[in-house]
Amino acid sequence: MLIVMKPRATASETEAVVDVITAIGLRAHPMPGATRTAIGITGNEGPIDGRRFENLPGVAEVIRVTKPYKLVTLDLHPDKTVVRVGDATIGGSEIAIIAGPCAIESREQAFTVAKAVQKSGARFFRGSIWKPRTSPYTFQGLGDKAWQIMTEIRDAFGLKVVTEAVEESHVGLIEKYGDVIQIGARNMQNFSLLKRAGRSKLPVLLKRGMAATLEEWLLAAEYIMAEGNYNVILCERGVRTFAQHTRNTLDLASVPAIRRISHLPVIVDPSHGTGTAYMVTPLARAGIAVGADGLMVEVHNRPELALSDSAQALTPSQYAQLIEEVHAVRNVMPPAADGLNAN
Amino acid sequence: MLIVMKPRATASETEAVVDVITAIGLRAHPMPGATRTAIGITGNEGPIDGRRFENLPGVAEVIRVTKPYKLVTLDLHPDKTVVRVGDATIGGSEIAIIAGPCAIESREQAFTVAKAVQKSGARFFRGSIWKPRTSPYTFQGLGDKAWQIMTEIRDAFGLKVVTEAVEESHVGLIEKYGDVIQIGARNMQNFSLLKRAGRSKLPVLLKRGMAATLEEWLLAAEYIMAEGNYNVILCERGVRTFAQHTRNTLDLASVPAIRRISHLPVIVDPSHGTGTAYMVTPLARAGIAVGADGLMVEVHNRPELALSDSAQALTPSQYAQLIEEVHAVRNVMPPAADGLNAN
Amino acid sequence: MLIVMKPRATASETEAVVDVITAIGLRAHPMPGATRTAIGITGNEGPIDGRRFENLPGVAEVIRVTKPYKLVTLDLHPDKTVVRVGDATIGGSEIAIIAGPCAIESREQAFTVAKAVQKSGARFFRGSIWKPRTSPYTFQGLGDKAWQIMTEIRDAFGLKVVTEAVEESHVGLIEKYGDVIQIGARNMQNFSLLKRAGRSKLPVLLKRGMAATLEEWLLAAEYIMAEGNYNVILCERGVRTFAQHTRNTLDLASVPAIRRISHLPVIVDPSHGTGTAYMVTPLARAGIAVGADGLMVEVHNRPELALSDSAQALTPSQYAQLIEEVHAVRNVMPPAADGLNAN
Amino acid sequence: MLIVMKPRATASETEAVVDVITAIGLRAHPMPGATRTAIGITGNEGPIDGRRFENLPGVAEVIRVTKPYKLVTLDLHPDKTVVRVGDATIGGSEIAIIAGPCAIESREQAFTVAKAVQKSGARFFRGSIWKPRTSPYTFQGLGDKAWQIMTEIRDAFGLKVVTEAVEESHVGLIEKYGDVIQIGARNMQNFSLLKRAGRSKLPVLLKRGMAATLEEWLLAAEYIMAEGNYNVILCERGVRTFAQHTRNTLDLASVPAIRRISHLPVIVDPSHGTGTAYMVTPLARAGIAVGADGLMVEVHNRPELALSDSAQALTPSQYAQLIEEVHAVRNVMPPAADGLNAN
Repeated sequence: MLIVMKPRATASETEAVVDVITAIGLRAHPMPGATRTAIGITGNEGPIDGRRFENLPGVAEVIRVTKPYKLVTLDLHPDKTVVRVGDATIGGSEIAIIAGPCAIESREQAFTVAKAVQKSGARFFRGSIWKPRTSPYTFQGLGDKAWQIMTEIRDAFGLKVVTEAVEESHVGLIEKYGDVIQIGARNMQNFSLLKRAGRSKLPVLLKRGMAATLEEWLLAAEYIMAEGNYNVILCERGVRTFAQHTRNTLDLASVPAIRRISHLPVIVDPSHGTGTAYMVTPLARAGIAVGADGLMVEVHNRPELALSDSAQALTPSQYAQLIEEVHAVRNVMPPAADGLNAN
Repeated sequence: MLIVMKPRATASETEAVVDVITAIGLRAHPMPGATRTAIGITGNEGPIDGRRFENLPGVAEVIRVTKPYKLVTLDLHPDKTVVRVGDATIGGSEIAIIAGPCAIESREQAFTVAKAVQKSGARFFRGSIWKPRTSPYTFQGLGDKAWQIMTEIRDAFGLKVVTEAVEESHVGLIEKYGDVIQIGARNMQNFSLLKRAGRSKLPVLLKRGMAATLEEWLLAAEYIMAEGNYNVILCERGVRTFAQHTRNTLDLASVPAIRRISHLPVIVDPSHGTGTAYMVTPLARAGIAVGADGLMVEVHNRPELALSDSAQALTPSQYAQLIEEVHAVRNVMPPAADGLNAN
Repeated sequence: MLIVMKPRATASETEAVVDVITAIGLRAHPMPGATRTAIGITGNEGPIDGRRFENLPGVAEVIRVTKPYKLVTLDLHPDKTVVRVGDATIGGSEIAIIAGPCAIESREQAFTVAKAVQKSGARFFRGSIWKPRTSPYTFQGLGDKAWQIMTEIRDAFGLKVVTEAVEESHVGLIEKYGDVIQIGARNMQNFSLLKRAGRSKLPVLLKRGMAATLEEWLLAAEYIMAEGNYNVILCERGVRTFAQHTRNTLDLASVPAIRRISHLPVIVDPSHGTGTAYMVTPLARAGIAVGADGLMVEVHNRPELALSDSAQALTPSQYAQLIEEVHAVRNVMPPAADGLNAN
Repeated sequence: MLIVMKPRATASETEAVVDVITAIGLRAHPMPGATRTAIGITGNEGPIDGRRFENLPGVAEVIRVTKPYKLVTLDLHPDKTVVRVGDATIGGSEIAIIAGPCAIESREQAFTVAKAVQKSGARFFRGSIWKPRTSPYTFQGLGDKAWQIMTEIRDAFGLKVVTEAVEESHVGLIEKYGDVIQIGARNMQNFSLLKRAGRSKLPVLLKRGMAATLEEWLLAAEYIMAEGNYNVILCERGVRTFAQHTRNTLDLASVPAIRRISHLPVIVDPSHGTGTAYMVTPLARAGIAVGADGLMVEVHNRPELALSDSAQALTPSQYAQLIEEVHAVRNVMPPAADGLNAN
């Protein structure tokens, strides 16, 4: 933390700032310059809320120097994390594909889609049990009765089950019947839920919030890791902007940005990231080309009848084509592009 | 819902759309035109996910005609809602002022601030018991031990207590010791929490999410009301934009926009809405001038030592000046500006 | 400028950074610390593009300390600027009202509106001669033949004429027939046009660009002032965000933010800032309450027949009501709120 | 255009709307329904400003049905446009690479970079003669004396010259000495400049504005085409959002979105789109993978000494590696991905 005083700040104004620094238990290092004085701060364990200094007389600017996260960084863990789920991996040499319907709607729907997912070589099956919906009057998921279907799919197809925990009590159920806990974009800063997931032994797939900066997203991962669960997978799914040709604006630059800072694997969700079926395959190719470790893709046997997010679901044959294309892209990627030396 | 077919759509493409409409239990009304056919849809109870039609062959555009909310609207409740909390009101003829520190830090801090709040004539005292913080390493609130302090303040000053429920279990505690349940911006779409608050008998103050459209915000209120709790107060607290001179961009146009659609009272939070103390008073005046029913303001006896959000807290004397100024503005407001006929 | 090296940066990496600083003609001040070295930079006349250092080996972060503008600041001009246009002022003790139709459409339309404007006590008449329109197929303004109408209005009503220069050649015409040169939001970074306006003797009203940060807006003003024209009026007219209940999101916090940095007067345009007639009056009151020096308001004798921006125009009687309300708010403003000591 | 009346709108309110429709020369088609009346509008040549109806009594909503552009669309020109510049093409089977320094700084710099560009097989050399800069105090380009250098490069390397016209007078100079006229993001709605470029015989590369919707961008292209110049190349270069890990947020979904609507070629600029050198290559791969027709890339022989945008320039060897990687991606693209049947 660095506090820059105004050119005409008085000595007593500088002293008052030093006093506040001392009062909150830190050390002040005044550095007088030709035209203005800067004051360095040290001695803090975690981040300091430096904005407290902004309104003190004579202060021109407060500049944060250190980053507020630790466990997510390459500084503490220079090797890339490979999350293992049984015999499948996320962040390793294979592309991790998580595919399935938006929500489990019926046994027939789920089985038809799961068959297509297995056939494509994917290892993970997604499907919401509980759906967080913007309107209280729309389909909210089958709820607990979907678990029976999920269990059968897991047994029949050998797929790992990824599903979203919408509240803390769901985590226990996913621990019992599933393989990966998903935290959705709307809950990225539901800190109670993050902490509960942090106490689980299952990996956590953490979607980026709709208006989350990279720092906020990494700090949400830090919440999970601070509880002891280091198996976190980040998922870019688009952010909210003024643009209207897509439901969200997929921010693929977040992938190299995370690679620079963090050892955690990162995947891309082109289905939610665009909201429109015809864009999913081009953006899936782009996600792999930018260096993501995998993809989350929505597939439905009859998209036009889907009970949620019908506009973004691919048919099984469109999905099979997507898988073929992303493997082709992955095969020509430079060696470092999917690893830590990418940049 | 209106589906507009492409100019060259074939009759069989139009029929296929009609079939899907029928398959999901609705009625189709094809309307052939000179250059293109439009198909109206009726028979729906709640909203339809019209985006399912977007990818069908021959479809040019899908246009939503009706709004997805009901209980929040003036259509169903043409009189403005006045929320009563004991002998105080929000949405009535008085300005509702909710003031206090960001978080309860100590008995001395809370009492000093509460005294200033009471002296100003305000009826509501705010102060977080539990703080949702972006970083796991910063002050998270005193937790349950703050209730003792809150209870004493309620008794000593006769102020109504407003505090945020960060998880479902908090709602019961607020019902026991507090007066108004606050739902924070980060939890605006934590639907489990909204439903729990909807089953409470206490009023709910619902902050706008950081990237929430007006419709999403009103649908979050609809979640609470759909459970039977009609005492909802909306709170504009700024949204996330590219602008960097404030922490959030306070969107005061949301106040007249809500007035046009909804009977619910709406207040403005210039403290979180700007994040900077020197802006709070000008924006508080603007909030009252635009027609808000009240204000939420952060006050601290020693802002520079506050454990959270120190940059935006006013001192007791700055706060007293703010109250004077906003009353002066309110006194010259045209009769209808705070009511339903404002626009 | 401050360059912070990584904790494990080597001495030779630090030296390489120092060499680049020297190579571009500046002075480097390395400051070794307990865990990392910071390097201060001095000797620059204007701003430095500090991002050049970001990719050098060993560099953790580049921190800008000084602001890139000069002439707009209170540092150089501690007294607030009052722009004088004949016997009228902007930035002084009166509220500056600039009102009129979006575009001059006909003699009858312009005269009807001008009469209402004069009657309200406003001193400035606005009306576009040339309209920058998003689509090439919509009304583009009457062009040069509107000058005849403008000249008659100026003579008949004694109003000062404010009109937008869409290209450099327009500036000369405004100098001949008008009183204030407006630079529109779309042209805020049309630097050739800014420089041309900077060489004019007429005051310049500079609208904020749709996605302009405060700094970019002030730098656009700096372009005008750097050419010698110090009579610049800033105009907040809303920015582009994800919100859809308004055409733009009016960012009223920009008014106190500018007051803190700059001596230039600032007005608010609630017509373009909301895009919807029913919101204009509430936001006009808010604009005055936040401390703006004036307002720009669109008025049309028959809004529903207007050739451009019809949804946001007020009728003459709605406008008269607005003027009454904003004067009432202004009369109760605290003494400093419209001046430099406001905050 | 469709106007939806409120459920309780009276017959005379509906008639008043019909009267306005007639008054502006169009035809009204009232369609009474069970609960409300809708009124269709036909007879318009160009787009109608439907917002004029929003404030009429009884109107609930105004819905636009047709799009405001024509010449850019596939409806009018079902084959993809291939822009030819001498023996090079943009939009055809080859990847169009436009590379070079941000600005021409010296003969030596320009030649060193041009040599690397030629060696990579690229056909287009970029380099600003005039630089639109946010601050008046930073390097503004060499201006006219850079033409001598450009002319030598064109002769020596056989590269086509792409440079930005910052004002109308520049267009004539580019016609004399260059090959492609670039319109920058800040000037995307400088309609005078667009019209001037539209009267040129040279192709125009049109960058997307910082806050431009897809529709506004296409309408800017429509301005150029409406003057008779059909050789327009669109360039996605990122938009402004709240995100801070990049200078702009590259919106790659705009590429398939444009393909669906327009026959114009579209390229991606990962240099301005990210603002940071280490991200350029991953996003260049992603740009090709999403289906773009080419790339614009900034290259500098000594990025750390560049006079503008130094943080985003690649070295010649980084650039050579990028070219190799994007060709590898292009070679595995599905046949339709670069063409009109992509989606």
